[in-house]
Amino acid sequence: MTYRKLPTGVQDILPRECRALQEVRGRLTRAFDARGYEPVVSAAVEYYDTYSNIRNALPQERMFKFTDQDGKLLVLRPDATLSICRIAATKLPAQPVRLSYFLDKWDAQNAGGVKSREIIQAGVERFGEEGAFSDAQTIAFAADCMREAGLEHGIVDIGHVGYMKGILEGGGLTDAQAEEVRACINAKDAFNAERVLREAGADGHTLAAVRALPTLFGGAEVFDRAEALTANVRARAAVAHLREVYRILTEMGYEQDICFDLGAGKSLSYYSGIVFSGLVREVGAPVLSGGRYDGLADDFGRHIPAVGFAIGLKRVLVALERQGRLPEEETADAAVACEAGCEGQADALCKRLIAEGKRTVLAAEYGEGALAALSAREKYLVSAEGVRRI
Amino acid sequence: MTYRKLPTGVQDILPRECRALQEVRGRLTRAFDARGYEPVVSAAVEYYDTYSNIRNALPQERMFKFTDQDGKLLVLRPDATLSICRIAATKLPAQPVRLSYFLDKWDAQNAGGVKSREIIQAGVERFGEEGAFSDAQTIAFAADCMREAGLEHGIVDIGHVGYMKGILEGGGLTDAQAEEVRACINAKDAFNAERVLREAGADGHTLAAVRALPTLFGGAEVFDRAEALTANVRARAAVAHLREVYRILTEMGYEQDICFDLGAGKSLSYYSGIVFSGLVREVGAPVLSGGRYDGLADDFGRHIPAVGFAIGLKRVLVALERQGRLPEEETADAAVACEAGCEGQADALCKRLIAEGKRTVLAAEYGEGALAALSAREKYLVSAEGVRRI
Repeated sequence: MTYRKLPTGVQDILPRECRALQEVRGRLTRAFDARGYEPVVSAAVEYYDTYSNIRNALPQERMFKFTDQDGKLLVLRPDATLSICRIAATKLPAQPVRLSYFLDKWDAQNAGGVKSREIIQAGVERFGEEGAFSDAQTIAFAADCMREAGLEHGIVDIGHVGYMKGILEGGGLTDAQAEEVRACINAKDAFNAERVLREAGADGHTLAAVRALPTLFGGAEVFDRAEALTANVRARAAVAHLREVYRILTEMGYEQDICFDLGAGKSLSYYSGIVFSGLVREVGAPVLSGGRYDGLADDFGRHIPAVGFAIGLKRVLVALERQGRLPEEETADAAVACEAGCEGQADALCKRLIAEGKRTVLAAEYGEGALAALSAREKYLVSAEGVRRI
Repeated sequence: MTYRKLPTGVQDILPRECRALQEVRGRLTRAFDARGYEPVVSAAVEYYDTYSNIRNALPQERMFKFTDQDGKLLVLRPDATLSICRIAATKLPAQPVRLSYFLDKWDAQNAGGVKSREIIQAGVERFGEEGAFSDAQTIAFAADCMREAGLEHGIVDIGHVGYMKGILEGGGLTDAQAEEVRACINAKDAFNAERVLREAGADGHTLAAVRALPTLFGGAEVFDRAEALTANVRARAAVAHLREVYRILTEMGYEQDICFDLGAGKSLSYYSGIVFSGLVREVGAPVLSGGRYDGLADDFGRHIPAVGFAIGLKRVLVALERQGRLPEEETADAAVACEAGCEGQADALCKRLIAEGKRTVLAAEYGEGALAALSAREKYLVSAEGVRRI
């Protein structure tokens, strides 16, 4: 009798949460539209080779894989940004283009019960744009979208992959060593980060800079400290870029919505510049995640600079619940029942109530008794004598 | 270089179509809400056993199957009604309950290029209701939903599985033989239908009634002819039920939206009473499909009578396109560019234009030149001198 259970990490969404999800989706749809983002949907079933034969390949153990009737290997959409990038590179010749999506992605990795393997996302991607103004607009819109989703006190935490890369490059590390250190830092494993650095022969300056990374967190005051830690050109260019992004965001009135974290990494290797996460106090993991990925479309045959973000809608629901902003279980506003032969008048009454903006249920059973089973603020019975409020 | 192609039968949806899909989805969401349907989402990845260990099992060759890390067999949601039925039976104790959904389903069967294997559906299911009034309300709402989706001249074609079943039962056929005849009739294969009937020793009345099935199509005038063809109690009860559904629908003002087809079958065996299809002249296959399935929840441990329908949203888009009702490629209403240092005023101008209901794009590049790449009816440049319309 396993057949009524669901696999680990996937869920049904029941009415109360689903109504909130629908509300968030509607608000984000309007926000995306208003800013000129064009909606797209990518196929959910794709060839395995689409995501394995690229430089930014996803680990195969994270993809749900299955075989098509012709023997070809398929996957369930493992990443929204990659599929939107494929569409932009292969099907949308005009640039710049701003796309939006509501897409689910699946992660085969079974992290043991809590982590979701079916991720409901909303997101935007801007193709054919470069520079600090493009980055700042994207971050400002991320803050707007968190507010539109109903979240209070959201913060966008901004970093730049060039800073850490520059410091490690300046320390003489190979790409593979740098990647290993980056993974340790992301996992907050300072011990092994230092071990790899020492084995690679990194100098004292580099060691000190890497040790300082977790402290480079806060407002614009971190920029001076970050610059003082390194002479590497790439790392300093990253800080200069963040200063300009900060200037524009302040100019646009978003100073209270942002903070900086120069030690921030991303688990996905495809980011090439700015990276950011949307955080709310009530949820331990980011509700929003994004950044710049200028090299990603190369894998699909065209070089298109790009920046974007995705919102994790289940995490938004958790945050709304913990902020006490999830609506109560809803009842209908009105319920109507009728005697046999009065179905026409009853349906017409329902349509009038709906036109007044009331959610209205018409009972499927006849007579006053049918109203007892329905919960609603107003109840009406339609009979040959007319309409009577019960 | 296969990796930029999509598997047969799945598609990306590009902005023009996707915008129409979003519009239809928004309209149906409001229609479902107004009538008191509660939204749900079922998990897209489920155990194979959920759909194979039931009486109304789906053919395994139509399911995309894959293995979980623990070795258990999974499937990609093969049917929306079954999954909503599982939710109603196992997670929603209160009855009656009316549910709505927007769910994709997948069909592994590769019918060779044209047929979609990724089906985008919207639908409703009403649990815990019986009788002609419940059926009539569902059919009326199906007609409403086709109109809400923007379709013109839609017709709901209504049948009843009891009529054909009754005739075959009256002819002395076993369940297996009756199923074979039903499959032949659905496939419009009169030759083999007659062969099976003769082999089963069906009498002349039964043969004549089966031959007449395809002609039992039209308005209420078919009821008399249908009754005259058979003395079988079940078949005549089906016609009596359809007469009552017709009376209520006429009373509610839906006479012009419906027709009857007593020879209609359904490829899914789970229907137990009324069945119906939403048709528009411009598309060869139904854009909407539904019916009553009183025994389906039994498979999930509870007996709950139920009726519902699903709308195929890609077919709706095809119909809208052919009816000339798909919107043109949209440009933004307004585009704004600015000089460096004026980002704040430019963003504020965008927000004012958006508040006026205009879809507004803010250029990522600086200066008047940036406006050339953007298509919009109104264009503005913001500089230290102020706002200038271009």
